[in-house]
Amino acid sequence: MKALVYLGSGKMALEDRPKPDLAAATDVIVRLTRTTICGTDLHILKGDVPTCRPGRILGHEGVGIVDQAGSAVATFKPGDRVLISCISACGTCTYCRRLMYSHCTTGGWILGNTIDGTQAEFVRIPHADMSLYPVPDGADEEALVMLSDILPTGFECGILNGKVAPGSTVAIIGAGPIGLAALLTAQFYAPAEVIVIDLDDNRLAMARRFGATETVNSGDGGAPAKVMKLTAGRGVDTAIEAVGIPATFGICQEIIGPGGTIANIGVHGTKVDLHLEHLWDRNVTITTRLVDTVSTPLLMNTMRSGKIDPKLLITHRFKFDRILDAYETFAHAASTQALKVIIEA
Amino acid sequence: MKALVYLGSGKMALEDRPKPDLAAATDVIVRLTRTTICGTDLHILKGDVPTCRPGRILGHEGVGIVDQAGSAVATFKPGDRVLISCISACGTCTYCRRLMYSHCTTGGWILGNTIDGTQAEFVRIPHADMSLYPVPDGADEEALVMLSDILPTGFECGILNGKVAPGSTVAIIGAGPIGLAALLTAQFYAPAEVIVIDLDDNRLAMARRFGATETVNSGDGGAPAKVMKLTAGRGVDTAIEAVGIPATFGICQEIIGPGGTIANIGVHGTKVDLHLEHLWDRNVTITTRLVDTVSTPLLMNTMRSGKIDPKLLITHRFKFDRILDAYETFAHAASTQALKVIIEA
Amino acid sequence: MKALVYLGSGKMALEDRPKPDLAAATDVIVRLTRTTICGTDLHILKGDVPTCRPGRILGHEGVGIVDQAGSAVATFKPGDRVLISCISACGTCTYCRRLMYSHCTTGGWILGNTIDGTQAEFVRIPHADMSLYPVPDGADEEALVMLSDILPTGFECGILNGKVAPGSTVAIIGAGPIGLAALLTAQFYAPAEVIVIDLDDNRLAMARRFGATETVNSGDGGAPAKVMKLTAGRGVDTAIEAVGIPATFGICQEIIGPGGTIANIGVHGTKVDLHLEHLWDRNVTITTRLVDTVSTPLLMNTMRSGKIDPKLLITHRFKFDRILDAYETFAHAASTQALKVIIEA
Amino acid sequence: MKALVYLGSGKMALEDRPKPDLAAATDVIVRLTRTTICGTDLHILKGDVPTCRPGRILGHEGVGIVDQAGSAVATFKPGDRVLISCISACGTCTYCRRLMYSHCTTGGWILGNTIDGTQAEFVRIPHADMSLYPVPDGADEEALVMLSDILPTGFECGILNGKVAPGSTVAIIGAGPIGLAALLTAQFYAPAEVIVIDLDDNRLAMARRFGATETVNSGDGGAPAKVMKLTAGRGVDTAIEAVGIPATFGICQEIIGPGGTIANIGVHGTKVDLHLEHLWDRNVTITTRLVDTVSTPLLMNTMRSGKIDPKLLITHRFKFDRILDAYETFAHAASTQALKVIIEA
Repeated sequence: MKALVYLGSGKMALEDRPKPDLAAATDVIVRLTRTTICGTDLHILKGDVPTCRPGRILGHEGVGIVDQAGSAVATFKPGDRVLISCISACGTCTYCRRLMYSHCTTGGWILGNTIDGTQAEFVRIPHADMSLYPVPDGADEEALVMLSDILPTGFECGILNGKVAPGSTVAIIGAGPIGLAALLTAQFYAPAEVIVIDLDDNRLAMARRFGATETVNSGDGGAPAKVMKLTAGRGVDTAIEAVGIPATFGICQEIIGPGGTIANIGVHGTKVDLHLEHLWDRNVTITTRLVDTVSTPLLMNTMRSGKIDPKLLITHRFKFDRILDAYETFAHAASTQALKVIIEA
Repeated sequence: MKALVYLGSGKMALEDRPKPDLAAATDVIVRLTRTTICGTDLHILKGDVPTCRPGRILGHEGVGIVDQAGSAVATFKPGDRVLISCISACGTCTYCRRLMYSHCTTGGWILGNTIDGTQAEFVRIPHADMSLYPVPDGADEEALVMLSDILPTGFECGILNGKVAPGSTVAIIGAGPIGLAALLTAQFYAPAEVIVIDLDDNRLAMARRFGATETVNSGDGGAPAKVMKLTAGRGVDTAIEAVGIPATFGICQEIIGPGGTIANIGVHGTKVDLHLEHLWDRNVTITTRLVDTVSTPLLMNTMRSGKIDPKLLITHRFKFDRILDAYETFAHAASTQALKVIIEA
Repeated sequence: MKALVYLGSGKMALEDRPKPDLAAATDVIVRLTRTTICGTDLHILKGDVPTCRPGRILGHEGVGIVDQAGSAVATFKPGDRVLISCISACGTCTYCRRLMYSHCTTGGWILGNTIDGTQAEFVRIPHADMSLYPVPDGADEEALVMLSDILPTGFECGILNGKVAPGSTVAIIGAGPIGLAALLTAQFYAPAEVIVIDLDDNRLAMARRFGATETVNSGDGGAPAKVMKLTAGRGVDTAIEAVGIPATFGICQEIIGPGGTIANIGVHGTKVDLHLEHLWDRNVTITTRLVDTVSTPLLMNTMRSGKIDPKLLITHRFKFDRILDAYETFAHAASTQALKVIIEA
Repeated sequence: MKALVYLGSGKMALEDRPKPDLAAATDVIVRLTRTTICGTDLHILKGDVPTCRPGRILGHEGVGIVDQAGSAVATFKPGDRVLISCISACGTCTYCRRLMYSHCTTGGWILGNTIDGTQAEFVRIPHADMSLYPVPDGADEEALVMLSDILPTGFECGILNGKVAPGSTVAIIGAGPIGLAALLTAQFYAPAEVIVIDLDDNRLAMARRFGATETVNSGDGGAPAKVMKLTAGRGVDTAIEAVGIPATFGICQEIIGPGGTIANIGVHGTKVDLHLEHLWDRNVTITTRLVDTVSTPLLMNTMRSGKIDPKLLITHRFKFDRILDAYETFAHAASTQALKVIIEA
């Protein structure tokens, strides 16, 4: 089969690989119909993810059709259409019982990282009963690809952890795909204001179309002051970090109001300054999280009922044999204005 | 001043009464600009509320202008425009510290019940700092009258107690004003389905305009079966009782799914059957609540940001000297299709 | 093998039965070393549990040694010592993902009910990875038998659902084994007062030894008045119903304070009166629950660290061939003062 | 009257000052019978608290007798014995309504900071109804002094924010008075293990007497490795920072387990490193808080019922005219082994 293979820092290629086999009775082999590219895939390509070794097939998102199912798989059979979760979960370990699938002792984020992933014709999914979801009749499969990773990530790490609530004031720092996914799912809780902060005016314009009530360009360093002015000096109830660098985490600390929550989504590669000399008595909460995908059923319900339109995040479409072009487009989002790119079988 | 006075079961009159005086340093006298009528006022008129004695000025909702403020009032001064909460709260007793203002040992629901109320030219508001809210600049005062009682009641007793959540399935039993207030505020949490049940097809049509995804006429006794069919046999996550009689509380018990919550809003005059022989192992929660109005600031935020339009509840308007006509209209809602009636000074 | 078999209302016998076989790859066969009898077993014997048909081997509690493990069982192998949970859970269905194992679509309370149970030399445990727990090195296996059902039931249905909190006032109605299990686990949350109510002075004396701060004999009908006096008229924060009849559920309603919670544990065979005419504005919560056994790991931790001594509940011990005597002793608790009886292989 | 006055960095003196007068109708003047010294007083003396200007009477803890009560004070009258909270709260501002008394817009921590404090014969208490508590009949007033600040601080900032739960594993970094207060109140939630870490073996011995299950001397830099070993590599569920320096906050980050909470109590004077490059995907929560004293009624209940013995924290007693000796003793805790010192009128 064709597969996109990571070949070490800065290198990848579309290669021929053997079709995967069932390795455990709880595995399923899925034939992909659609996949996509994640910011994390770009991190891997930069060589920033040491757990992902050269030779690995990339990708942890997608929908497809069950090709083979292990003998202990209860929920799925060949021919079933399925959504693949970016997180694999055994369901029975200490962490899974606490609904922290991201820390599953034999799962977590393994697809396209420590085992072969979804940017291929076929993929092996371990712990299939917990790691796949049936595609509902009539569901839009393109939209569903957004439920593999980006929407649960924005929702769980940003909105749920950030305790977004009706009437509250939210700031989202970073208007890339993940910040916009947080923005879309913030609407589930009817916040009064959602202020989006970014360096790129195109992205801020996009944020306004996605429901931001205010946008602030942080290029001049004045973003914190502007947010404090917008909130009459109170600061925000929730600040969502959706970039992953010290500067943006710093903005969060400057704008968080007493009793507020800083919800980190960004993947950080270095330590940051935490100004406890200012925050120790501010009654604030800071959270981190790798998505657990526990909200997937909830998100499927909201999608089915029209409360959210995940396709807003999709800007480009490619056939699988042009996946290298898709990477090119996704990696140069500033010029291509790409959010999520769909790659079709 | 003119005031609407309860004169015993079935009787009321518009009378001349002396303007109220400050009785405590924490009191405020408010000149009413707008008030409204509550279902509870009708209960009083039927003689069903023994705490309310003949001679009492009715009414516990309204907006107005501060006429006098006691010496210990910190927040308000004459001329300030204010929203009156139906619940008075001292802020310091055991219950107020638990945010259960409804059980304040020197407050709670006293207006138009154990002390004179708001269906008058002036009203005395005890514990004014906790029991009044400043009208924001530019706010629509008609809409604000809906925040005195009906919206916080629907929201706190129905939506918050009922734990309405994104993607969940909600049933509201009763499409009168309070059921519709619950329906409006349910939208803050993006439920996937809201099924509204009533005997009156006009009200059900109204419910669909207010956002109900399904409506069921319960006139033929088949409502529970229909709801179970709509939910593929699972039952609902939240059942909100917004009537106050055994039959409707019974419907809630028949349609509640495992792990679900029955949130009672209705004012009940008699005991009901609780089928613990069916429910003991269903992991359900049943809640009761007199509104605490702790959500008033939140509701003002959602109104300011356009997340809710409280004026949808207003169907009729009267001048204060025609308040008896207003009662007539409100009491015959089946024929007048009245929801909330505004009474202007 | 020898097994205790239910033979229809009022009848049981110790019979020879074939040793069970693995029926699914996720099953385990356990050789019992210790089991016990539950109040629910007596309900079955009275013919009150229609799901349990004659011919069924009784029992849903116990510890033992793994005899055979299915090919898809990840956690257990022959020779492992295991605690059997009274609830079987697949871990992957809608309810299991919500941690409501009691409503697992292919599990729940099935042992000794819809499939053969633990009062036998061997038992087949479905969904073994989720339904068995490893016995920690050095653990007291007698004590562990109390974690199959009675302690998680008292804790989850009574203490967790009842929101017992430091400094709070708790009433437990019923001082049988389940009420005492609630009393033991209430101590995890340092309530200021725990008032235990029962008809039997022997049981009340036992309750005082288990940590009750006050006891009330309800034989004269004056229990509610006594509790209100003990709480200076405020009522209790948590009322735990541990009997399962209308009278005791009625006491709960009379003593619950504003903002309080009535947590039902009792197995009810008939409807009860719910006095919504008094409770509609009391801001109370009523909960029901079949134990989910989600707290088993937590309880094992507290047992290991000496925060609880489950053996306090064990009053009698029998060899398995005398299990009919054990039933006799357990069924006549008023005269034998039995709480839990251990039955050893 | 005699009062201890801060005179600028490193300086204080026992001076004669005029007795305070009522300044608002909601004020009370309290004659102190007992006070104590807080670590924060030492911070002020070092010149580290710029809001506290020279000339200020120090102290924010104590019990006493009401001398005068303003006309709008509802709860207290001259002669009443009262506990003084370190936090003053109006009860009506935005923050007080959210139970964040520490951020009260006209209160918070003002005593002995921005207004004169309790290390004097008399003190003026603003917002008295919310900021004083009646001393229950028969209560031990020495013990009650521990409820002014140190016990609610340890409990709210450490135990409640840290979500200490039955069966969980807790680490407390710092075995000074505040760490030990956290340790005492941790017992309300029956954690399985409480590991206390400090540089001082005397304090660690004290911690064992207060209920620590393990102690670790961090002098050799090996504390994190020891904690990881004690937890079999899992890390702790809750890490409580009770020192206020970068090194101890660093230990918290090294030992926190996935899904765990770092609850900061320490007063920090400088920024710290936050290792988001390790923590971004660990699903951890970090909290800060200035005590709100919302738990004072709860703590009084637990003290009354004997669930906690606050006097364990008291090591020394002085008459008020020897308060400078008391400071000397408290400031040199390493040699005097002082925890809390009681200063009597």
